[in-house]
Amino acid sequence: MEFVTKREEKKSTDALLEELMQGTIREDERISLKGAIHTIRDMGDIVFVVLRRREGLFQCIYEKSKVTDFAKLKEAQTVKITGTIRSEQRAPHGFEILVEEVEIYSTPTKSMPLQISKWKLNTSLEAKLDYRAVALRNVRERAVFKIQEGITRGFRDYLYQEGFTEIHTPKLGAKSAEGGANLFKLEYFHRPAILQQSPQFYKQMMVGVFDRVFETAPVFRAEKHNTKRHLNEYTSLDLEMGYIDSMDDIMDVETGFLKYTFELLKRDYAKELKMLAVELPEITEIPRVRFDEIKRKVSEKYDRKIKNPYDLEPEEEALIGKYIKEETGSDFVFVTHYPSKKRPFYAMDDPADPTYTLSFDLLYKGLEITTGGQRIHKYDELIKKMETRNMEEEGMEDYLSVFAYGMPPHGGLGIGLERLTMELIGLENIRQATLFPRDQSRLVP
Amino acid sequence: MEFVTKREEKKSTDALLEELMQGTIREDERISLKGAIHTIRDMGDIVFVVLRRREGLFQCIYEKSKVTDFAKLKEAQTVKITGTIRSEQRAPHGFEILVEEVEIYSTPTKSMPLQISKWKLNTSLEAKLDYRAVALRNVRERAVFKIQEGITRGFRDYLYQEGFTEIHTPKLGAKSAEGGANLFKLEYFHRPAILQQSPQFYKQMMVGVFDRVFETAPVFRAEKHNTKRHLNEYTSLDLEMGYIDSMDDIMDVETGFLKYTFELLKRDYAKELKMLAVELPEITEIPRVRFDEIKRKVSEKYDRKIKNPYDLEPEEEALIGKYIKEETGSDFVFVTHYPSKKRPFYAMDDPADPTYTLSFDLLYKGLEITTGGQRIHKYDELIKKMETRNMEEEGMEDYLSVFAYGMPPHGGLGIGLERLTMELIGLENIRQATLFPRDQSRLVP
Repeated sequence: MEFVTKREEKKSTDALLEELMQGTIREDERISLKGAIHTIRDMGDIVFVVLRRREGLFQCIYEKSKVTDFAKLKEAQTVKITGTIRSEQRAPHGFEILVEEVEIYSTPTKSMPLQISKWKLNTSLEAKLDYRAVALRNVRERAVFKIQEGITRGFRDYLYQEGFTEIHTPKLGAKSAEGGANLFKLEYFHRPAILQQSPQFYKQMMVGVFDRVFETAPVFRAEKHNTKRHLNEYTSLDLEMGYIDSMDDIMDVETGFLKYTFELLKRDYAKELKMLAVELPEITEIPRVRFDEIKRKVSEKYDRKIKNPYDLEPEEEALIGKYIKEETGSDFVFVTHYPSKKRPFYAMDDPADPTYTLSFDLLYKGLEITTGGQRIHKYDELIKKMETRNMEEEGMEDYLSVFAYGMPPHGGLGIGLERLTMELIGLENIRQATLFPRDQSRLVP
Repeated sequence: MEFVTKREEKKSTDALLEELMQGTIREDERISLKGAIHTIRDMGDIVFVVLRRREGLFQCIYEKSKVTDFAKLKEAQTVKITGTIRSEQRAPHGFEILVEEVEIYSTPTKSMPLQISKWKLNTSLEAKLDYRAVALRNVRERAVFKIQEGITRGFRDYLYQEGFTEIHTPKLGAKSAEGGANLFKLEYFHRPAILQQSPQFYKQMMVGVFDRVFETAPVFRAEKHNTKRHLNEYTSLDLEMGYIDSMDDIMDVETGFLKYTFELLKRDYAKELKMLAVELPEITEIPRVRFDEIKRKVSEKYDRKIKNPYDLEPEEEALIGKYIKEETGSDFVFVTHYPSKKRPFYAMDDPADPTYTLSFDLLYKGLEITTGGQRIHKYDELIKKMETRNMEEEGMEDYLSVFAYGMPPHGGLGIGLERLTMELIGLENIRQATLFPRDQSRLVP
């Protein structure tokens, strides 16, 4: 059957390439490789053509004297190159292809706006973002997003193992009392609607159904910040977990996710980690320290006055990171028991001192990458907390009613995927870790 | 270290439960199970308490004469029950727990609006959707979403294996010329913006970067349809693949995805398939048949006049399903070469007859579950096609420019997750396969 033969031929090309990349060079064997022409280096007698594929770069070579019609080859063409394999230690993956035939699929009609074949794409962030789909053809630029894929995979795969159910909650909703100012508003069939800034209420409701749930999906925040660490649309890795004994269970799950993910990255994304010179931290246990305690310690050790006892300034977060690194060697730290007034109404207050909550942030090298904690699970307590804060129930009836029908003790967390990617890789701007960032000035491409 | 001991104790409870569910009953061993009280059946001397957990239902039992303070137990409470294990063939999983202690985490403050403990939740779809977070506590209702999880997992895991990269594309965008009427509009920092109705342009642009990409994310369609098969927000499983030889490559990938996913479902979601009496179809090869050819054959075989030669009516799709089932035994069929006028501008016309495109739909039991095909990859052809259709380039500059910088032959497809879930399970309404559906009349919960 023709169909099967063709499929098998394709599979065998993929398998041959895989073998070659593993170091088994099949000298003189014929191969056809499809890809984009990344660079052409004309050395006079011989010409090097570097092909860009999803696996990386591949060196092809031909002698001008021996071929006639390769003059048409141009950078950024997409082609199929057929030739024979030859060991070449100086080429990527230790081999090159002696070109015999070239089939051209497409030829660019404009000259490239960026020099993507440079090892480091030395251009402004603005230019990279303006020509995003071109800039990402640079292999180091795109490597960021393979690592991002690994983080998302790690999150999901670890949680599947732990008995979590993946959910898809709606991004369109009716107006609610929470966080009104930061919501994007739209008209939905002649009714006012908003874009969800978080799946918080939905994931909590689903804890009553599946005990443990997670979601990896976009969230939308109409905040007017313009920093290196904020976006108006980002991918949120959210989880919520029922029947916990304390918020320690949530921090345990996050620690497990990070360990699992770092192993996955080291195994399946080693190429990209190396390309970007990322050194993943070793995690055994992550220290957990109270907000008020670490604030005091940092103030003492670095002789810094506490300005606001109820919040952490960025500089203070950085010092906490430094302190923990110096004292324990850990790049990560869970700061627990944030002040109640800085946490949303659904956060559970600490029964021992309701000024503080059973909540935490995870800091990595002094930067916040997660916010989480235990939530109130009893209806009466939730209503009481709302009353204390003078909040209206309007628009939250569905959420609140779930608590009237019985909810387990639970908690959860949210991780900004782009921010985590940025911090792990050590990028300066969150936009570098976003395929097509959305900020106050950027709605295209 | 206290922390480790606690984690290990928790792990061992999970492991014990797993063993029990596999059929290894450890008679008289002590166990603590947390869960929601699904039902209480008072039989006079003895009382059955059924606990609902993420893994399923568990029977607990106590004798009134032997205990004093269990009178407080109520349905919908969340609790921890401690007791000893006893074989009981009539109980779920072949065992029950002889209750010794109960710790109550929460007690409902309202009576349940739906009888979730019934095997079949016999109430209207409207009521199920109004009380969604309660209705889904019914174990059959929630099983739908475990199967949905399996489909999403299968899609991703199969594509990772095949060298695809997962991407996250923005849902907020500037106004574009494509499909203006069906777009939700909003204000984005004093500029007009829209919600993406598909990641189409972005995934095509990313083929130039990663060769093969996929995304599983929400899409938004402001269409004013009110049918059992449409939603205004849904989860789209999208893929796009470069360096294809023809659209057969895309159909091969979809066939591979379905085979892989059905195996995954049979292995990891057997419980839910059984609960919903789902019989997954066997797939070897999926027949591929031309649009005009099958239209003619169906017309002949079932003596039905062709009303519109350029489109398929729902009734016709159903007859195609019937025809293929009768002639080949397959529940699936790829209908290929849809008329150009019914496909978007980026669809590649068939060089042999440009009235038709190199595109396809996948039908399952006579219902469309996928639309896909090969796309135009040459800049000039794309511009020409737009001119023929009198389309403006405005708002599509970034998309179009990518083709000027060289793009490989490529194609892809989109699958509505909720629709595929609905069809595979045999549900009547797509809202049953959506956690929180959004349609013209429903924006809450």
